[in-house]
Amino acid sequence: MDAKVSVGLLGVGVVGSGVMTLIEKHQKKLMHQLGCPVEVKKALVRDPNKKRAIDTGASETVLTLDAADVLDDPEIDVVIEVMGGIEEARRHILSAFAAGKHVVTANKDLVALHGAELHEAAAQNNCDLYYEASVAGGIPILRGITDGFASDHIEQVMGIVNGTTNFILTKMHQEGVSYDDALAQAQELGFAEADPAADVEGLDAARKMAILGRLAFSTYIDLDDIDVTGINGIELADLKYADTLGFTMKLIGFAKFDGKRVEINVQPALISRNHPLADVKNEYNAVYVYGEAVGEAMFYGAGAGSMPTAAAIISDAVTVGKNMHRGVTGSQFIEPRFKKELKSTDEQFGQYYLRLHVRDEAGVFSRISDTFNEQAISFKQILQRPSDQPETAEIVVVTHEASLAIMQQALEHLQDLDTVLAVVSFYKAEGDADT
Amino acid sequence: MDAKVSVGLLGVGVVGSGVMTLIEKHQKKLMHQLGCPVEVKKALVRDPNKKRAIDTGASETVLTLDAADVLDDPEIDVVIEVMGGIEEARRHILSAFAAGKHVVTANKDLVALHGAELHEAAAQNNCDLYYEASVAGGIPILRGITDGFASDHIEQVMGIVNGTTNFILTKMHQEGVSYDDALAQAQELGFAEADPAADVEGLDAARKMAILGRLAFSTYIDLDDIDVTGINGIELADLKYADTLGFTMKLIGFAKFDGKRVEINVQPALISRNHPLADVKNEYNAVYVYGEAVGEAMFYGAGAGSMPTAAAIISDAVTVGKNMHRGVTGSQFIEPRFKKELKSTDEQFGQYYLRLHVRDEAGVFSRISDTFNEQAISFKQILQRPSDQPETAEIVVVTHEASLAIMQQALEHLQDLDTVLAVVSFYKAEGDADT
Repeated sequence: MDAKVSVGLLGVGVVGSGVMTLIEKHQKKLMHQLGCPVEVKKALVRDPNKKRAIDTGASETVLTLDAADVLDDPEIDVVIEVMGGIEEARRHILSAFAAGKHVVTANKDLVALHGAELHEAAAQNNCDLYYEASVAGGIPILRGITDGFASDHIEQVMGIVNGTTNFILTKMHQEGVSYDDALAQAQELGFAEADPAADVEGLDAARKMAILGRLAFSTYIDLDDIDVTGINGIELADLKYADTLGFTMKLIGFAKFDGKRVEINVQPALISRNHPLADVKNEYNAVYVYGEAVGEAMFYGAGAGSMPTAAAIISDAVTVGKNMHRGVTGSQFIEPRFKKELKSTDEQFGQYYLRLHVRDEAGVFSRISDTFNEQAISFKQILQRPSDQPETAEIVVVTHEASLAIMQQALEHLQDLDTVLAVVSFYKAEGDADT
Repeated sequence: MDAKVSVGLLGVGVVGSGVMTLIEKHQKKLMHQLGCPVEVKKALVRDPNKKRAIDTGASETVLTLDAADVLDDPEIDVVIEVMGGIEEARRHILSAFAAGKHVVTANKDLVALHGAELHEAAAQNNCDLYYEASVAGGIPILRGITDGFASDHIEQVMGIVNGTTNFILTKMHQEGVSYDDALAQAQELGFAEADPAADVEGLDAARKMAILGRLAFSTYIDLDDIDVTGINGIELADLKYADTLGFTMKLIGFAKFDGKRVEINVQPALISRNHPLADVKNEYNAVYVYGEAVGEAMFYGAGAGSMPTAAAIISDAVTVGKNMHRGVTGSQFIEPRFKKELKSTDEQFGQYYLRLHVRDEAGVFSRISDTFNEQAISFKQILQRPSDQPETAEIVVVTHEASLAIMQQALEHLQDLDTVLAVVSFYKAEGDADT
């Protein structure tokens, strides 16, 4: 047994500073769990003189500008990668494995893109690779899925895994403000970046869903497998109709697995107010898991932030430290059990919400209704309202369950009707409305 | 490495049948994770001819009336105890450890009462002891606390850990029915037993909180340390006032730890509608954890039921199987870090809800208000309503934070006032009301 667990940090930004702070502050708890101290021996920085978000308390000799000081130091057992980015981080992590070091990372972009390669490199070198912090920050969801559901068949994962978009949608819903105003508020409060594209366009959520999907279904999910729609086209009117109909709008990562084929996408969707995800507000994250045996389970908490992310990283480092002491590192990797097969649109089922802009004339609703009947799609809820433009109306419907392929056909036929001026919105609607 | 993991079952009731069913059904997944099959070799039953809830598919040779067939079989690696009760289960588990067998149990009563003894026996014999299923059924909360929060200081745990009482309170709230009617409904639907005492009086919740408290705070909590109030005295009127004030009534297990002293109790309490626990409805369970670094986290799911409980048990058995293969069984036990010290009532702080039955005469409110002022307790919310009895009124207040000791003094002084006919109700109120 080593006399200590020696850590090398790659990156000392907000999360890295948090890691250093927590390791120092909770040293007694770490010693109690591991039976030895945890020490940050070297930390790679870009600029050693930069003022950091948190005083790391680190002596000058810890910080280094040279990655080799971390990667080539034979005394360093565990490399914690919190520098972000793809290529450099990937190279460093592969070097760490080649040198027999274990790796803990918070880098969802990297794990989503190169997870398979990293896992295989870790296994080849008998090393551990953990990345709890990469999905939903402080929520121990990856452990929950891999260990807690070890004996269950996970049928469905639904995640609110992006805090920025959840904050924006919550503001729109609660304060009745437009998407642009809510985004500006989020930026002011630091919940959205100056360039919010990766968040609002759904890419960040897609990366997390790729990781969740792989662990939940034991198959490699590529980012390209995920259909992604962001919230940047969202209109307040749809949030208001959703509310009237008993739903809340959320950006949801959906992943389903029937034991053979996978369906995985990220999209704004209506969630019934009866569904546990509907109550997840502001910047909070939550992951809802449906297991064949366990039924419904949900994990809720902070999805980001220096301290929650740092705590998740250190919990991974503790797991590595325990594995080191027991001599069982490199044993957590399990080759995926299933070859990935994706569902076609006629194997994907859902209820759908549609908002149509129509001419306000006799018989319009029956023509629309006929179009749905032809596809054997039936309605669950219907609303008709005068539009703010003269001689037109808005029709909002929520359908019963139908395949996506058939819904898409119905949409095409609707657009061919003279009386339908536009299909304004089209969203998935999950759960039974609370009316 | 063993060619298989061989399991012996103690008890084949609803949960035991679920365990046998799941092991058979998910054999491929188990093999994938463990690299070997899992087999139920012997199962202790009281009556081999009893019709079981689930067809276990077990051949006649598996069932036995003799515990020795499980405990003395050298080929059995893991004993799963789902027989319930205290003394016999305890004896069998201690025998299993003495024979070098690992134990997985769902027995909260036993673990709450004899957890220390069982852990020590396991450690002495290099054996594993896991009991994920003992708290909140299908929710992997014990793993979440021990592994997910490994590097964090857990300050607070609040649990809705009894499905029966949550079902009853949800019915009262949603349908406006009395406690007795809601209990009768719960009994009809199988959510409450014919003798509901252990559930409605809070003892079941207290047992689970003793287990959660130990793991969260790394100190042994005895059942006697827990102040317990059940929901059997609950009046619908208080649920209605709570609703008006922005709260929901829940049976909550509270546990707090300031790094030195513990506060732990089970009581019906008002929870702000803004709090994630307020949305946990019907028979569902949820455990809310506040960590210094992670902040808020909540774990939600089914608290009971044959399949969720069985899935939790098998996830523990998988952990044991992995430990066996790695040769690291018996290493998860960590001696508690803290000697238990309990907070006195002047170290326990909360907001409180009071309902008073008073004479409807001039100056009554100012006399009541003076009584609180003397103790430096201030009000957050006040309601006054005519009572259904002539010349009397009801006054409902929610206080700002105060110590329990001071609140108890104020209550005594209130009862001395001529104008106060009765202090009808007194509950803790958690969080800021959504008004």
